[in-house]
Amino acid sequence: MILSNITPNTSDINSQTIQLMHGYWRAANYLSVGQIYLRNNPLLKRPLAKKDIKLMRLGHWGTTPGQNFIYTHLNRIIKKYELDMVYVSGPGHGGPALVGNTYLEGSYSEIYPEITQDEKGLKKLFKQFSFPGGIPSHVSPECPGSFHEGGELGYSLAHSFGAVLDNPNLIATCVVGDGEAETGALATSWHSNKFINPETDGVVLPILHLNGYKIANPALLARIPQEELIKLMEGYGWKPYIVAGDEPLKVHEDMAFALENAIVDIQEIKAKATQTDSKRPVWPMIILKTPKGWTGPKYIDDKPVENHFRSHQVPISDPINNEDHFQQLEKWLRSYQVDQLFDDEGTLKKEYQQLAPKACNRMGMNPHTNGGLLLKDLKLPSVKDFAVKVNSHGDIGPGDTRSAGAFLKEVMKINSDEKNFRLFGPDEILSNRLNEVFETTNRQWNAQTKNTDEFLAPEGRAMEILSEHLCEGWLEGYLLTGRHGLFTSYEAFIHIIDSMFNQHAKWLKVTKELPWRRRLASLNILLSSHVWRQDHNGFTHQDPGFIDHVINKKASIIRVYLPPDANCLLLILKHCLESKHYVNVMVAGKHPSPQWLSMDQAELHCKKGIGIWEWASNDQQDSTDLVMACAGDIPTLETLAAVSILRKEIQEIKIRVINVVDLMKLQSTNEHPHGLSDSDFDALFTKDKPVIFAFHAYPWLIHRLTYKRNNHLNFHVRGYQEEGTITTPFDMTVLNKLDRFHLVQDVLNFIPKSGSQYDYLKEKMKDMLIKHRNYIEEHGIDLPEVKEWKWNL
Amino acid sequence: MILSNITPNTSDINSQTIQLMHGYWRAANYLSVGQIYLRNNPLLKRPLAKKDIKLMRLGHWGTTPGQNFIYTHLNRIIKKYELDMVYVSGPGHGGPALVGNTYLEGSYSEIYPEITQDEKGLKKLFKQFSFPGGIPSHVSPECPGSFHEGGELGYSLAHSFGAVLDNPNLIATCVVGDGEAETGALATSWHSNKFINPETDGVVLPILHLNGYKIANPALLARIPQEELIKLMEGYGWKPYIVAGDEPLKVHEDMAFALENAIVDIQEIKAKATQTDSKRPVWPMIILKTPKGWTGPKYIDDKPVENHFRSHQVPISDPINNEDHFQQLEKWLRSYQVDQLFDDEGTLKKEYQQLAPKACNRMGMNPHTNGGLLLKDLKLPSVKDFAVKVNSHGDIGPGDTRSAGAFLKEVMKINSDEKNFRLFGPDEILSNRLNEVFETTNRQWNAQTKNTDEFLAPEGRAMEILSEHLCEGWLEGYLLTGRHGLFTSYEAFIHIIDSMFNQHAKWLKVTKELPWRRRLASLNILLSSHVWRQDHNGFTHQDPGFIDHVINKKASIIRVYLPPDANCLLLILKHCLESKHYVNVMVAGKHPSPQWLSMDQAELHCKKGIGIWEWASNDQQDSTDLVMACAGDIPTLETLAAVSILRKEIQEIKIRVINVVDLMKLQSTNEHPHGLSDSDFDALFTKDKPVIFAFHAYPWLIHRLTYKRNNHLNFHVRGYQEEGTITTPFDMTVLNKLDRFHLVQDVLNFIPKSGSQYDYLKEKMKDMLIKHRNYIEEHGIDLPEVKEWKWNL
Repeated sequence: MILSNITPNTSDINSQTIQLMHGYWRAANYLSVGQIYLRNNPLLKRPLAKKDIKLMRLGHWGTTPGQNFIYTHLNRIIKKYELDMVYVSGPGHGGPALVGNTYLEGSYSEIYPEITQDEKGLKKLFKQFSFPGGIPSHVSPECPGSFHEGGELGYSLAHSFGAVLDNPNLIATCVVGDGEAETGALATSWHSNKFINPETDGVVLPILHLNGYKIANPALLARIPQEELIKLMEGYGWKPYIVAGDEPLKVHEDMAFALENAIVDIQEIKAKATQTDSKRPVWPMIILKTPKGWTGPKYIDDKPVENHFRSHQVPISDPINNEDHFQQLEKWLRSYQVDQLFDDEGTLKKEYQQLAPKACNRMGMNPHTNGGLLLKDLKLPSVKDFAVKVNSHGDIGPGDTRSAGAFLKEVMKINSDEKNFRLFGPDEILSNRLNEVFETTNRQWNAQTKNTDEFLAPEGRAMEILSEHLCEGWLEGYLLTGRHGLFTSYEAFIHIIDSMFNQHAKWLKVTKELPWRRRLASLNILLSSHVWRQDHNGFTHQDPGFIDHVINKKASIIRVYLPPDANCLLLILKHCLESKHYVNVMVAGKHPSPQWLSMDQAELHCKKGIGIWEWASNDQQDSTDLVMACAGDIPTLETLAAVSILRKEIQEIKIRVINVVDLMKLQSTNEHPHGLSDSDFDALFTKDKPVIFAFHAYPWLIHRLTYKRNNHLNFHVRGYQEEGTITTPFDMTVLNKLDRFHLVQDVLNFIPKSGSQYDYLKEKMKDMLIKHRNYIEEHGIDLPEVKEWKWNL
Repeated sequence: MILSNITPNTSDINSQTIQLMHGYWRAANYLSVGQIYLRNNPLLKRPLAKKDIKLMRLGHWGTTPGQNFIYTHLNRIIKKYELDMVYVSGPGHGGPALVGNTYLEGSYSEIYPEITQDEKGLKKLFKQFSFPGGIPSHVSPECPGSFHEGGELGYSLAHSFGAVLDNPNLIATCVVGDGEAETGALATSWHSNKFINPETDGVVLPILHLNGYKIANPALLARIPQEELIKLMEGYGWKPYIVAGDEPLKVHEDMAFALENAIVDIQEIKAKATQTDSKRPVWPMIILKTPKGWTGPKYIDDKPVENHFRSHQVPISDPINNEDHFQQLEKWLRSYQVDQLFDDEGTLKKEYQQLAPKACNRMGMNPHTNGGLLLKDLKLPSVKDFAVKVNSHGDIGPGDTRSAGAFLKEVMKINSDEKNFRLFGPDEILSNRLNEVFETTNRQWNAQTKNTDEFLAPEGRAMEILSEHLCEGWLEGYLLTGRHGLFTSYEAFIHIIDSMFNQHAKWLKVTKELPWRRRLASLNILLSSHVWRQDHNGFTHQDPGFIDHVINKKASIIRVYLPPDANCLLLILKHCLESKHYVNVMVAGKHPSPQWLSMDQAELHCKKGIGIWEWASNDQQDSTDLVMACAGDIPTLETLAAVSILRKEIQEIKIRVINVVDLMKLQSTNEHPHGLSDSDFDALFTKDKPVIFAFHAYPWLIHRLTYKRNNHLNFHVRGYQEEGTITTPFDMTVLNKLDRFHLVQDVLNFIPKSGSQYDYLKEKMKDMLIKHRNYIEEHGIDLPEVKEWKWNL
């Protein structure tokens, strides 16, 4: 349904509708309790027996009845207006609700045919929940209709906003838990409404579910005056509707009307948006205040449970050994009057079945939630059109990310009809020198503007807010619903989303193992303003450890690239944008810097991912004295400068230069699919020669990747050692002993050759370091001969 | 000054005061521009020459004049009411402002005597800024009066709240940048006001500085209607005062009155708090709307600069080569009329000097900002009082963290007069089983309460909110101002604060190198609900990689402990609470589990940090066939179970069991101060025997730590391999091949012995794994013989 064409009305809200919805809700609640407790007797056709009860009872009841309530109401409104709606479950553990509801609507059985809509299927549905070999207790990838996992809290709203970008008629109803609402990521996510274009994007309908409690504490937003909460939501730019109570029939009625009101608002905003009204709309949201563990036991062992944090997990803890508990459980289960809801075969009765939407309108079958179904390959231009010309090795290029920016501009241009690519950054797209994208697009922004602003517009392919959480969350939501994108950030501060990366990598791992889940576009992260070039930001901005973090995740999911120059970056970037179902991390420089490979050379090099640079080496077969390896733009620069010195000063030292673009090449084949075989590794690094490895990040990562290799004991790695401050670019390498002068000393120390010219060169290197130190402390800039290095390659 | 005793008045606000403050502000602004641009001619006694200008100009002008403005006004109010106030600079790069102001008030020269308050000192002050060998461009540890580093954005408010806890008469004035305000951490930090006790804690006075722009974008909060912004702040529970404009004299007057209004509110709240009024107060805050780069050049190269993002860094980019730029710079510098502000010697004129507070009232000298000055050792009880009795190895204990909770309860009790210890957790103190603390304290909470609540009170030593960012930020603020604390979290979600940990570790590293900075209490992090015991949460809650992240930081700062049982945890916890200036990470179990060491044994073991468990081993000197090493509670359990099997089934295999408590023992002495010498390492692990290492976290971390050791090639490490779901506790180890049955197979595969009993045992292990799988898929609980294991040690 085109949202602007809806004709809202409330004619269907009457006591019969309410009664039916109430029945449907009871069915969902019953299925929820059943999943947590039962392994047999799923329809309670006979008295509950202890052997019907699971030996281990794991799950989360507290949030579940509220989510069942919401789902039931959304079904009504979807069906009535033929809405295209997805359900995002923010509270951590709503598993029983979403599993139960997708089962009631039929989605579950379509995806898992063994879970039939009858007594036998019900029994399986119950048993598999939170059970070894079964399904998790939260809204996991296994759950139909889910594209947001309720594992770590805080990202539901951001994911919802990512989902509706470029989907103008999609509504993402996002249930925000009042616990989750306390997280930082969620607290800033409310502001996402300033980035949505009401004409070209869809609608996020947040439902803040105030059930009042977290694991063992009240929720903050449930414990401030209502007027404060309303102001907060209005201050965030929303129009809140409040639905509150614990009398089901009354709350059903209020909720139905609140949703109708929201539909009225949405229709009006959408209708206006097609005119020239570009004013930022105030979107509706709902505050739903119902008891935690609603309809569950009110007291257990004389302690309040319903409307208390004690209903968070499994309220009745010991129904097998404790007779009171056992009786309470049976009473609770029977309170839903299951025999009125399901027929004798265990199938939901017809009058309730017809409440659910049909086919892809069912939230469990909405294709946006299995984004690979909708994914179209990105059209990608030839990288040759953006190649940096390299007349001789060491020519200065325009800045590697600058070339990437030109490429991305073209990507945006040729995919502009599909509207399926976006660039995300925390106010760092310009700082990371991807400027050229703004020649073809703008930053999407729907807050106020001034005529001195640059590149802001209600619609644009770039999304910028100073929140790494939101950039990452929006992008994840965009990818999970079948589109493409790139996140660019400063290298150090990408750690802000370490945990979000974890969750996404886990989602990719699990969905890869589910046949019905289709592959998504990769999560692509381009890091610049990296550790070696924090000239004006200093120590706080220096941390190259994100890649250490990344490679702890499954090898089948993660990829790490360190392109040494612009042409390599272009090739790698294209490769990442083409890839599916990975997390690709690229680290690249942004400053004008030496370029090493023509596009043709770069193509060969990147294809291999690692290789000998013969033009820089002077060894022949079997004559190698030593290998100088490098990974990353600055380490490559310093390595080649060191080689320059050595080849000029002592030609007899035979050096092999190896550059690593694809970091995972270093691992064994059986640890990472990209890994080199041992023989290939030996062919590159030799079995017994010293290897001086200049590395972009923390040095021990190279040891971790290569410890099984034959020649590993000869590896000497230089990298970032947590030494740095505001200083010159070259001095950063000196502080961490990764610079050319230290590298030459390393070579002289590690090869088994000596002589007067060796001693002379060692002394010269020491002198250069002193000269460097004195010069920068006097002038504040690098030695001219370092800045304008004479290459001898 | 006792805040409730203040008698507010505005009698001093007149045109003379305003004019003087305006002069002081100009002086601070001049010093700021001087720091960014000048290396000579600091008083402009002669015409500006190109050689006076730094060759490299790095720094951030945009935020600076606003912060100078605020600092000037705070000086007035501090002096007038004798306030104890600290200044927290939220915007990233206010360095020139804070350095300049602490110089003007004299603090800077007291700490750095070579930076004198005369022309010579001024020249040094200017040159050192953002210069190799000098000081960073942001409010770094080198800056007097700073305890919050403006590196990564988002933590200023959280740090401020941490600072005022238990400091009832301290005011932390927190300048929140409008860029920073977009971050998740900051967005939720506003809610901290619900946790402050107006009687026993101090005051956070936020000043939201809307200068309108970030690096290259407008700031969101500057682009919403003012009424929305006011509602937002009121919704967060604050009373906002708005000061806006660009006419300095008018804004000075408005700001002076706004601060007086804030003082009136603070005095009233404080006065009421001493009575029985426990209602949560609405604290004042100020929204200051002034142009970014205020008083700087309005246009450069015909582009707007003042009140635009172009003033973010160095507004005039090329004053040495571009004649227009050069002239604009001189005009800008002279616009402050430096000769009216400083005397001929370069000393601030008397009439301005007297505007600054004196001695420790100066914000640059406030002892809270150099917390070690105020730090008192924590009183710690004997751990023996909390020892778990171990009659025989393998006795089941009450849960390791439960014992830690009993110990922490006592810590709280005996330090209750000093009020210098707090426990922080994201709603996980109970879930991590530290229950007993609530027998002596409560969770501090000043939002609404109900009579069914538990352990909530206006004052308490525990702080809980579902935001790892706030827990960490509050604790950091508490530590940085000279107190002690502990953060307890789920292991997986501690990654949420990876980047905060980075920044704090960097702060510790740099302050350690500054002689005037005193040592702080360590940042102690106790992780439980760890990767191996996520029975009901599953895969999303499994990530043991925080320790990989931690050990990338300086070895002199970081410590990692994996106590295998309750007595070891108690000893380690005490050790960490006694220590200074580290980040200590402890990972411990919470479930009832086997206990290995009596308190006496544990004491010996923890003192060494690593050791042979002779009671579990059956090797003699030189007879060792194989080493079984373990680190972490679950790996220790599985290792000892495997040893039990082996010692029962094939006595001839001589096994040495090593347990590692202090992970950094594995590294070399020259890499970590705790590291074992190579000979000590060899004495433990042998030089040539197979080592089967069962490890709590990702296995390759052990390789990373030991790759230089003699016997490293014989290390076979089992750990978490990103395999897991909802399943039984034992099955988690099976999925990752860390369980006893796989470990026994490992042993049989790696020792060079064979025979029929070996083949028999291999088959038996395989059978056990099949039996296990069948049993859990039928019953959903672990095999009885695994749960009630018969130890044979």
